[in-house]
Amino acid sequence: MIMDLWYTEKHSDNAGITMKTTQTLFSGKSKYQQLDIVETLEFGRMMLLDGLVMVTERDEFIYHDMIVHPALFTHPNPKKVLVIGGGDGGTIREIMKHERVEHAVLCEIDSLVIEKSIDLLPSMACEIDGNNPRVTLHVDDGLAYIREHQNEFDIILVDSTDPIGPAVGLFEENFYQLVFSALKDDGIMIAQSESPFYHAEIQKSMYRNLRAVFPIVEMYQAFIPTYPSGFWSFAFASKTYHPIRDFDQNRAASRKFHTRYYNEDLHRGAFMLPTFARENIAE
Amino acid sequence: MIMDLWYTEKHSDNAGITMKTTQTLFSGKSKYQQLDIVETLEFGRMMLLDGLVMVTERDEFIYHDMIVHPALFTHPNPKKVLVIGGGDGGTIREIMKHERVEHAVLCEIDSLVIEKSIDLLPSMACEIDGNNPRVTLHVDDGLAYIREHQNEFDIILVDSTDPIGPAVGLFEENFYQLVFSALKDDGIMIAQSESPFYHAEIQKSMYRNLRAVFPIVEMYQAFIPTYPSGFWSFAFASKTYHPIRDFDQNRAASRKFHTRYYNEDLHRGAFMLPTFARENIAE
Repeated sequence: MIMDLWYTEKHSDNAGITMKTTQTLFSGKSKYQQLDIVETLEFGRMMLLDGLVMVTERDEFIYHDMIVHPALFTHPNPKKVLVIGGGDGGTIREIMKHERVEHAVLCEIDSLVIEKSIDLLPSMACEIDGNNPRVTLHVDDGLAYIREHQNEFDIILVDSTDPIGPAVGLFEENFYQLVFSALKDDGIMIAQSESPFYHAEIQKSMYRNLRAVFPIVEMYQAFIPTYPSGFWSFAFASKTYHPIRDFDQNRAASRKFHTRYYNEDLHRGAFMLPTFARENIAE
Repeated sequence: MIMDLWYTEKHSDNAGITMKTTQTLFSGKSKYQQLDIVETLEFGRMMLLDGLVMVTERDEFIYHDMIVHPALFTHPNPKKVLVIGGGDGGTIREIMKHERVEHAVLCEIDSLVIEKSIDLLPSMACEIDGNNPRVTLHVDDGLAYIREHQNEFDIILVDSTDPIGPAVGLFEENFYQLVFSALKDDGIMIAQSESPFYHAEIQKSMYRNLRAVFPIVEMYQAFIPTYPSGFWSFAFASKTYHPIRDFDQNRAASRKFHTRYYNEDLHRGAFMLPTFARENIAE
């Protein structure tokens, strides 16, 4: 019989999630953070950075559908897309389903995350293994990379960890200004924006910073069972296109790939927020 | 220093939620089930039936907003409302905010739940303490009660536990036929319908049973952090009114009470489901 081993992540000092694990597939420290990949019975393989769940095989489809498809179905012609973070490859995998995208760049600070994802999470990393000519990998700090690019990307997706550790700079106004400059005149930025249930203060400051830079800033939501509270959010920050008014529902409905979470109705519903979430980011 | 005591609820054999508790306020067995009310640090007071979380003070506003307001803002003139289960009183509290409701009946099988809620969960039980003439309490089996009522209620809310133990009959076609008969010709039934993430099989059979009885059956969703996966659902089953096409958004927007979860936009968004949830209940 296997050892009865449970991984518990505290979502606050006083509550958390717990899941049964069967083995540790990798555990090691990079220059930036602690990386662990473990096998769980309920959620399949799970990647942790500094002890926090980043992705699991069972529910990653939700996060990756929702960080990618709302922007890529709002922008009428997304040709060049940048992902900052996202070293597991799931975001790039979803971007590659869009035939209009000619080129996607992944800028991940930690090469160990990329390497171990290719090795141990192949269902996510399938498009970042070096075989897809439409994908370029850069191992670099997102801030440093973006400083050197202007007016270049149609869409920038900030697939970051929480605002502690290496990702703290990715929640500040200065960074959003650099993103704004790196986007074309009709560009869109998406960033994961934490849990409205647990992270009201982070959201308040993040959306204030975004509104100081972008003319259009909206929040949308997704259920992600392995994230704190299960209630997660993304920021849609845009120069020109509005996620509802400029959304071409027919184009989204006629997509040629299956999405287990995203669909053209959910696209609109995701922006219809509970009152307390609206209040977190009220101007 | 208090004992470091954690309550863990398994949502499946291999995953669950855990929260720090400070004291047990009540623990006892009724004729029907085990009832516990404990104090937690993150979620306030929490009621458990047979070891499963029913409500917590911190997130009950979500469940109670969503079991009540979508139906009560869809029906143009809800005068008489029946709640089956719901002995904590939170559902009745929200119904009482609707001035059009002349009379609400609570039919709860377990008097111990009512008694201890009045005693220990006063923020929920505030309208079931015997002082509101618009509220009637019946301590009775929902099936037995409803069998004796025909063509009487505008809305019936099934605020039940999971389909194990005393609530199992509340998920069967025979029960839905009795509800149909107890409703007026334009009546609406709402029932909690489990988690699309964990309970696909229960949903499939429940919605098949509902569709065998009601001409209009739709699923809607809410984030409930203390329920399995955080992703929860409700069934909207109706004789005449459709929850979107017959929804008067202006009436909902001009409501005279504050709702921390429900609002007139979220009403529509709640019916826009992820693909996998749609597929659970596909006809």
